[in-house]
Amino acid sequence: MKSQLSDVIRPTTIIRSAKLNDHLGLDITIATETFQHTGSFKFRAAYNLASSVDEDEILTASSGNFGQALAYACKLTGKRCTVVMPATSARVKIDAVRGFGATVDLVDTTKVGRNERVAQLAEQMPEAYFASAYDDRFVIEGNASIGDELADRDFDVVITPVGGGGLISGIVTGLCRSGSRTEVYGAEPLLGNDAARSLKAGRIIVNETEPMTIADGARTISLGKLNWEIIKDSVADILEVSDENIAEAVRMYFGLVNLKSEPTGALSLGAILNDTTRFTGRKICLIVSGGNVDAAVYRELIG
Amino acid sequence: MKSQLSDVIRPTTIIRSAKLNDHLGLDITIATETFQHTGSFKFRAAYNLASSVDEDEILTASSGNFGQALAYACKLTGKRCTVVMPATSARVKIDAVRGFGATVDLVDTTKVGRNERVAQLAEQMPEAYFASAYDDRFVIEGNASIGDELADRDFDVVITPVGGGGLISGIVTGLCRSGSRTEVYGAEPLLGNDAARSLKAGRIIVNETEPMTIADGARTISLGKLNWEIIKDSVADILEVSDENIAEAVRMYFGLVNLKSEPTGALSLGAILNDTTRFTGRKICLIVSGGNVDAAVYRELIG
Repeated sequence: MKSQLSDVIRPTTIIRSAKLNDHLGLDITIATETFQHTGSFKFRAAYNLASSVDEDEILTASSGNFGQALAYACKLTGKRCTVVMPATSARVKIDAVRGFGATVDLVDTTKVGRNERVAQLAEQMPEAYFASAYDDRFVIEGNASIGDELADRDFDVVITPVGGGGLISGIVTGLCRSGSRTEVYGAEPLLGNDAARSLKAGRIIVNETEPMTIADGARTISLGKLNWEIIKDSVADILEVSDENIAEAVRMYFGLVNLKSEPTGALSLGAILNDTTRFTGRKICLIVSGGNVDAAVYRELIG
Repeated sequence: MKSQLSDVIRPTTIIRSAKLNDHLGLDITIATETFQHTGSFKFRAAYNLASSVDEDEILTASSGNFGQALAYACKLTGKRCTVVMPATSARVKIDAVRGFGATVDLVDTTKVGRNERVAQLAEQMPEAYFASAYDDRFVIEGNASIGDELADRDFDVVITPVGGGGLISGIVTGLCRSGSRTEVYGAEPLLGNDAARSLKAGRIIVNETEPMTIADGARTISLGKLNWEIIKDSVADILEVSDENIAEAVRMYFGLVNLKSEPTGALSLGAILNDTTRFTGRKICLIVSGGNVDAAVYRELIG
């Protein structure tokens, strides 16, 4: 499976910016997934899943990058795909999923919960595989390919955005199996800091409601179970990032790196801005998880 | 010299976007220089020049990417650098040049012409090498490194922005010496179409005034002499691009590719938009020359 995956995914794009490093006085290398197929790391997970499961039909719930990635992965692997999305999703996101040939099931979340709708559909589609965007072994294995790519670069520290934990658990998996000694840090929105609280408590802590951070890719209620099993013993720390620092990081990527990042993608640089001295003198790798952000939101962020 | 250059420059970043290709029905590969040192291809030229000339001091006139690139190249090679810039230049550009340790000579262009000021300085600095941003053999040779990189990719067509002709003459030089049969097209702002007119006339035609296109990197009066000698016999055609198509191309890169391009960098995609059927069925490479654009300008373009 692994060689097949690496034939299809784009290697992560490595960027170094003297302007950014001089500005912060740090040794930062950026590994950006903004040019991955469908514009985020999620394609790694989605393609690995679509090409690994026996089912010919896949069902998921996603208003964001995973839906697009799975739709494209299913197109490439010749499978049917249904994506449950809130009726309020941005038109451009609905069109992107449909553009890859998937069926979009729009749910009026004021009347029926998303999970409820997924359960209804799962009953109607007994042959379908239900894909979680993070709590799934094929997802974690797909994301591990980033860890594989970073393993021989000898970074001291990798910092990566955290939502449901699919990306960070994958990176840790990839690095560990290569015997890498790189420390892995998660960067999570302060407004939805369940992973940080979970790591402190030693058990999964759940947000009471969906956190309304600008990092829309990290508006998760909690870490996934499979992800937590990996994270709890192998992640150095989870850093909490204010929405102000996320926005500042998006601006810095624009102004100093020429990099278009979505807010969630900028979490790892945002974490650096919390305390720029914490990683002084170390070889830092910042993961930018994706670049899909609406023009209206982006214009406001860089203004 | 060549191996030394390739040790320092970043290879061009290759991007393919299914969304862009599906949207246009074309087979496009993007070669972007937006992540080159200082954010544009100009660093290739500047570093080759700074590391090749004997002089310890280099003088240039540039309000844009070449000034920044030369300042950084001189920093890396331990040379002194003076950049003549209009006093009206954007603060962020002046600061970038100063940030790399160069001397900025601000000229009030309402009182003294830029060329006049350069002549004054050249007299005061008899030991300095005066560097044209395009009409210089070290510049062309530096830019030829992109042609070297593209030579074995077997593109049918390469389309590249044209201002003074430094980039296109370099690309042609690099491709030709590898025996590549790739056709090279230039993409030039319609508002400053001297290169297209020159190619038709068979001699250098000069714009009467600096053209006020949004592609600020292509606001040149004419092609350089050395550039013209290469261009006249080896470029397939020069395509004229309206400012509307340049802006549309910037928006497409943002929305479909997650790529931040400056207006000048988007000229090659803009040329495709003139007539999307012209290159159907061919393997197209679009050069994105740089990504340095002010937030205010960019916000307007993607709005």
